[in-house]
Amino acid sequence: MSWLSYRRGDRTFVGLVDGEDVVPLEGVRRIDAGTGAEALRAARPLASERVPIAEVELLPPSWAPERVLCVGLNYDEHIAETGRERPTYPVLFPKFASSLIAADRPIAVPPESQQVDYEGELAVVVGTAGRRIPVERAADHVLGYTVANDVTVRDFQYRTHQWVQGKAWDASTPIGPVLVPPEEVDLASAGIRTTVDGELVQESDLSHLIFSVPELIATISVFTELRPGDVILTGTPGGVGFRREPKLFLVPGTAVSVEVDGVGRIDSRVVAEPTGASPR
Amino acid sequence: MSWLSYRRGDRTFVGLVDGEDVVPLEGVRRIDAGTGAEALRAARPLASERVPIAEVELLPPSWAPERVLCVGLNYDEHIAETGRERPTYPVLFPKFASSLIAADRPIAVPPESQQVDYEGELAVVVGTAGRRIPVERAADHVLGYTVANDVTVRDFQYRTHQWVQGKAWDASTPIGPVLVPPEEVDLASAGIRTTVDGELVQESDLSHLIFSVPELIATISVFTELRPGDVILTGTPGGVGFRREPKLFLVPGTAVSVEVDGVGRIDSRVVAEPTGASPR
Repeated sequence: MSWLSYRRGDRTFVGLVDGEDVVPLEGVRRIDAGTGAEALRAARPLASERVPIAEVELLPPSWAPERVLCVGLNYDEHIAETGRERPTYPVLFPKFASSLIAADRPIAVPPESQQVDYEGELAVVVGTAGRRIPVERAADHVLGYTVANDVTVRDFQYRTHQWVQGKAWDASTPIGPVLVPPEEVDLASAGIRTTVDGELVQESDLSHLIFSVPELIATISVFTELRPGDVILTGTPGGVGFRREPKLFLVPGTAVSVEVDGVGRIDSRVVAEPTGASPR
Repeated sequence: MSWLSYRRGDRTFVGLVDGEDVVPLEGVRRIDAGTGAEALRAARPLASERVPIAEVELLPPSWAPERVLCVGLNYDEHIAETGRERPTYPVLFPKFASSLIAADRPIAVPPESQQVDYEGELAVVVGTAGRRIPVERAADHVLGYTVANDVTVRDFQYRTHQWVQGKAWDASTPIGPVLVPPEEVDLASAGIRTTVDGELVQESDLSHLIFSVPELIATISVFTELRPGDVILTGTPGGVGFRREPKLFLVPGTAVSVEVDGVGRIDSRVVAEPTGASPR
C-alpha cells in the first residue's frame, strides 16, 4: 500500500496507489495538521474517481508542512568524508515548505551557484502530533516513509557556519513519489543508493543511521511539537559530490536518481533555472 | 500609526491602534501571503468595531509566517563577546511560526534547560513578495517593524554546530506588540535596549546593524521568495546573558524588557513551563 498526493485540475487529492492508477480518498485534500494518520487510514477510497497516475500532477507527499527538519552527519561514512566528529546529538537544520518539489520535477541549478550537490535520503512524514514523545513510542507518530534528494547548494552552505542558505532554496528538493506506511518498510535492512548519470555514487543501508527514526522524533519533539505533515530528512550516506576527488556537481543535463528499497525512487533531470524566475 | 493583530472571541483581526483602542480593518483577518502591504493599507477601518486593547487577546503581528529567519552576529559588540569573526555574509538561522508568542505572554523556561537567555532585537515583517530583490528596492518590501526577544536556549544551541534546537522552541519568542510602518521608524538612529530586573544589559542603536534591513532582504531573497507575513529578526547587540561574567539567565520570576525607540517595548515575565505541557 502507498499514498500519492496529487493535483487534478484545480483540486488536490491524496489517494491510494493501485498499479498504474491512483484512487482518491474521500475528503482528503492534503496531509496536514488537520489530516494525519487517523483521518488518512479511516478515509474511504472513491473507486469511481480512479485515474491513471500518468494523467495527474504529482505533488510532494506532504506539500505544506509546518516544519521540514533535516539531519546532517547521520551516517559514519559521510561523517568521515567531511572530517567532522561523530555527533552525540543530531545535527539539525531546516528547509521550508517552499523548498520541496514533486519527485518528477527537474532539479534547477540557480544562476548564482556552480556547486549544486545531491544527497540521497530516507524521509519521514509525521502522522500524529506530539511533544516530548518518548523514544519507545516515537515510531507510532510516523505516518510513512518516502525518498528525498536533499539537494544542497554548497557554495552557499559554507558562506557561514549556519547552513540554511545552502539548504533552503525554493523548489530545490525532490521528495516522493509515494508515501509508504511504516509496516511495509524494513528499516533494519533497506538499501539506499544514489546514481549520477548511471554511476553509483552513494550506497548504504538504513541500519547505518546513527540516530534512528524514533530517536530523531523523540529529540526534535523536545523543543517543538511535531504535527501531521511535518517532514524529517534523515541524513545522507557517504559519497556526496562535494567530498569526491574530483568534485562532482549537478549541472544541466545530469541525470540523478535516489532509491530506497521498498520505499521508492526519484529520477531527476537537472536543468538550468529558467531565467524567467529572475528578479520581480 | 501602528497595526495590532489580535483575537476577540473566536475571530482574529488586524486593526489600527488609536490611543487605548484598536479599530479593526475590514476583511483583514491576519497578515499573510494573501494579505500584504497593499491589502492592509487599502482596508477600511471599521470605526463601529472599535474596542479597548485591554479587552482583546494580543497575537504576534504576523502569527502564521511561512518563514521566520533570524540573523546572528549582526552587531560588532555581540561578535566581540562571542569571539567569532565579523561575517561577510549574514549568519542566518530559522525559527518556526510556532516559536512566536504575543508580546504580553510570559517566557516559559522549559524543564530541560538551565540556560534560557534573552536577545533584544528589531524584527521586520515582509509586506510584498519578491525573489532576488535588488538591495536598492528592498526597503519597498517591508510592511513594518516590531520588537522581538529572540529567546535562546543556550544549553541546546551548542549541542551541535547548527543552532535550530536552541532557537526554535515552541512558544519561546515574544514579538510585538504592534507593527509600525517604515515611514515612522528612523533606522539610522533608533536606540535598542534590554533590561533584566531593571538593570540595563544591552544597549545600542540600529545604525550599528552590520547587515542593514535592505541587505538582509536582498540576501535572503536570493534563495527563497520572501512573502507577506514573513518575519526577519535582525540580530542582537552585545550583552547577552551567556557571555556575561557571571552568566545571567532567565529564571522564573525574572522581568525582562526589550525596547526599540519608535517601534515598541516588550515587557515579559519569566515563568516555569507548566508541567501540563509535558508528554502527550
